Amino acid sequence: MDERLGELRDLLGEISDLGRARALLAWDERTGMPPGGAPARAEQLATLTRVRHERLTAPRLGELLAELAEPAAELDPDGFEASLVRVATRENAKASRVPAELRARIARTSSLAETAWERAREAGDWASFRPHLERVVDLRREYAACFAPSEHPYDPLLDDFEPGMRTAELIPVLDRLRAGTIELLERIEASPIELDVSPLRGEFAVEAQWRVARRVAATMPIAPSDWRLDETVHPFLTSISPHDVRVTTRLEPDALPTSVWALIHEFGHGMYSNRLSPELERSPLARSVSLGFDESQSRMWENLVGRSRGFCAHLAPILAAEFPDRLGGLDGESLYRAANRVARTPIRMDADEVTYNLHIALRFELEVALFGGELEVADLPEAWRERSVAILGVEPRDDAEGVLQDVHWAAGSFGYFPTYSLGNVIGAQLWERIVVPELGDPEAMFARGELEPLRELMAERLYRHGGKHLPGEMIRRLTGGPLDPEPLLRALGHKFGSLYECNSWPAKNAVREPQLKLR
Amino acid sequence: MDERLGELRDLLGEISDLGRARALLAWDERTGMPPGGAPARAEQLATLTRVRHERLTAPRLGELLAELAEPAAELDPDGFEASLVRVATRENAKASRVPAELRARIARTSSLAETAWERAREAGDWASFRPHLERVVDLRREYAACFAPSEHPYDPLLDDFEPGMRTAELIPVLDRLRAGTIELLERIEASPIELDVSPLRGEFAVEAQWRVARRVAATMPIAPSDWRLDETVHPFLTSISPHDVRVTTRLEPDALPTSVWALIHEFGHGMYSNRLSPELERSPLARSVSLGFDESQSRMWENLVGRSRGFCAHLAPILAAEFPDRLGGLDGESLYRAANRVARTPIRMDADEVTYNLHIALRFELEVALFGGELEVADLPEAWRERSVAILGVEPRDDAEGVLQDVHWAAGSFGYFPTYSLGNVIGAQLWERIVVPELGDPEAMFARGELEPLRELMAERLYRHGGKHLPGEMIRRLTGGPLDPEPLLRALGHKFGSLYECNSWPAKNAVREPQLKLR
Repeated sequence: MDERLGELRDLLGEISDLGRARALLAWDERTGMPPGGAPARAEQLATLTRVRHERLTAPRLGELLAELAEPAAELDPDGFEASLVRVATRENAKASRVPAELRARIARTSSLAETAWERAREAGDWASFRPHLERVVDLRREYAACFAPSEHPYDPLLDDFEPGMRTAELIPVLDRLRAGTIELLERIEASPIELDVSPLRGEFAVEAQWRVARRVAATMPIAPSDWRLDETVHPFLTSISPHDVRVTTRLEPDALPTSVWALIHEFGHGMYSNRLSPELERSPLARSVSLGFDESQSRMWENLVGRSRGFCAHLAPILAAEFPDRLGGLDGESLYRAANRVARTPIRMDADEVTYNLHIALRFELEVALFGGELEVADLPEAWRERSVAILGVEPRDDAEGVLQDVHWAAGSFGYFPTYSLGNVIGAQLWERIVVPELGDPEAMFARGELEPLRELMAERLYRHGGKHLPGEMIRRLTGGPLDPEPLLRALGHKFGSLYECNSWPAKNAVREPQLKLR
Repeated sequence: MDERLGELRDLLGEISDLGRARALLAWDERTGMPPGGAPARAEQLATLTRVRHERLTAPRLGELLAELAEPAAELDPDGFEASLVRVATRENAKASRVPAELRARIARTSSLAETAWERAREAGDWASFRPHLERVVDLRREYAACFAPSEHPYDPLLDDFEPGMRTAELIPVLDRLRAGTIELLERIEASPIELDVSPLRGEFAVEAQWRVARRVAATMPIAPSDWRLDETVHPFLTSISPHDVRVTTRLEPDALPTSVWALIHEFGHGMYSNRLSPELERSPLARSVSLGFDESQSRMWENLVGRSRGFCAHLAPILAAEFPDRLGGLDGESLYRAANRVARTPIRMDADEVTYNLHIALRFELEVALFGGELEVADLPEAWRERSVAILGVEPRDDAEGVLQDVHWAAGSFGYFPTYSLGNVIGAQLWERIVVPELGDPEAMFARGELEPLRELMAERLYRHGGKHLPGEMIRRLTGGPLDPEPLLRALGHKFGSLYECNSWPAKNAVREPQLKLR
């Protein structure tokens, strides 16, 4: 068995290396690649994807996994070896269901659709994007059909991001979150309190924003030898290996909050991948539990740390020092209030902590309908407008503010959006069950810029285990129960009830409008 | 045949992509990779190397090439298809001679030896490096033996850099170059003229050097969308694709010339790879004829352009503007003289245009003796000292200035050094036969910063053809004759004879000391 396990490790190590090399090529394309390199880079990325997929579906890997199934079943299921065989078997089986040729068509079509989307959004031109999106959706339906029979056609798409999670499990969680959010939002809107956002509005020199970003980055509890920071158009995080974390940010004169909170968000992802147990490296276990768990950390660090009263007290003098003219007298409380103003907006990227989940509810509902056969691409713009009014309470001015605002669908990433809300839900569960009991008064630590204790706690409980367990299993291990939106609703109610002085209002748990009707 | 050619292109395209991806990983490692990423990067590089080698030696590629051999022989040998089959057959045959396991051992051993070399050079500690170098040389001897029988055991090593070139062809060329150089050097040293190097000596702020580098780079005739410039420790050039050229430079307070001429050198390589014919992309033809031809361009741009009187006139005001205190009144002629002072030094990297080839002669002689069985690694330091006195006329103070000064041997790159002199030789041949007749008075163009005409000329005659032809064939096509050191000796005699006013001295063609005794 040892010999077979050794061979398995080697094969999986190569697959991991090919994936990480691909990640470096993609990072480079989005940060510093000379524009002339774009066409060749597309070929290079396609080749690495193809070679990696060939290896993941190679007959020898299938044989080895079959031979190891029985002996691995005797091992401790939490141990490295048993987890390796289990997770690799799952990946190999999933990859083998999808013809390489369909994967190639999806990659090519999505790449073209992304380019078409960029132009279409710029011009607010849905008509030019529609045929691209139709092709992408058709291919994704074909992809989902590779996994038939499934309980819901959306399940295989969701599974790519949340292994093992079913649509039917997710619907009640997101429905409850939506209803609770709308209830809180109405209380906030009925409050006479107005939070002053002026400290964060207007133009700030990008050179000084870059210095702010470097200082915020230096506060993050991750070794300076393990990361670098670059500029990009759409910020993201990628890890070329656990100790080679690439953080990106965008600097715009009128978007100071991006240099701070979007940066902390990406560092949240980065700390997760940085603190995997070394034995998991070069294996399919060297990753987060799921995208939802990954977002639980980015959203936790962005919101529960970055937008906390404590951390704002730490941050205010940094901003005051870099912008003495505009923010010379800024105190922590003013920054805290400015960073937490709640307001409805048609744009997800501009949304606050409360309304953010409504943007996800809108997208989730449309995606499930699209793959459940209840909605066609041609009807999307109208459905977006109608559901936006119903869920968000705002009507987009045009398609650029509506159906064209996100890149995800162009890229073929259906099933991705719900992980943002899942991240918020899971983050709040971990906060309530683990962070508060273990750290006592984290706000006081944050005010002193002490973030290591939180990072150590999360590394010990979550990060180091990598992708050994499925998300459903992991949430039970960590919280003793299932996925649960109540801690998030409680946390939001507590924070914003206090900020808007609307805590004493009676909570209405009743769902206010007809829910998703699916299947 | 078309179908088979299509399949061949696809297979070779993947091999090319894997090689280019590897180049990006290596570039990243040497420019901006967080240090924590080093161990994982070594694995990723090894995997890409192994996967690429597997594909290059795959049975299907061999079959296809065998099937295509006959039909390809009927095609125009200068055409794309015939060249593709010819070059791919050569690469496949070479790769198939070497066991994958030996390649892996060479890669691993060289990687360790490079690290050991860095420490050993720092400490001037030959003893700690010697066992590493012995292992590297043993493996390289084993590698060379894979190609037995060969005329000389050094031939297969040379062939990796100069396809088809034999040691026996090279010896008379480098011998004549060495004799002619020593003769010129003695005339220069007998001259009462001293060139004032003070404008380029001493400390210069690195920020201003960076601005100089950007301005020099902007003068180079290559589209701004096709390159980027980064800092590194040991400058190099790599192309991720023809329109994605990565130039690197090193900025040191006491090394202003590096920011200028080492940078132009790298851009010389870059322009070559930037102007390949588009049909060659993603094929084994998408590269220079040989490393010697590649160096012919880097050395041509560095020396024949960069150190020309004309270009110095263009450059002087740039330096004067960035360093007003030190170089405020600098004129072109003073810069030209400072940039061309001839002086013996034990260090190759510090050598001028005249003595540079003597440094290569020293290394070439030792390498040929090492692989010809006339010298052992243990005797290298003493042989270096003795031959340094004989050839360069200087004795290194210690091993750090002697046998430990270059990384090449640690990296296993035997056969590499002669390509520097080959580059000088070929560059001068092309200059005399093509550049001067076609461009008339290039110096006047350079003084105006007009470099496009030279770039266009070289692109038309050399760059666009990529690696279609072997170096011996290419030199005949371009100059009508064989490799010939006389144009270089004439050019050096003309330039330095004029600078040192020693032109009228009688030329002595006689060889002054016993030549290499090989086989």
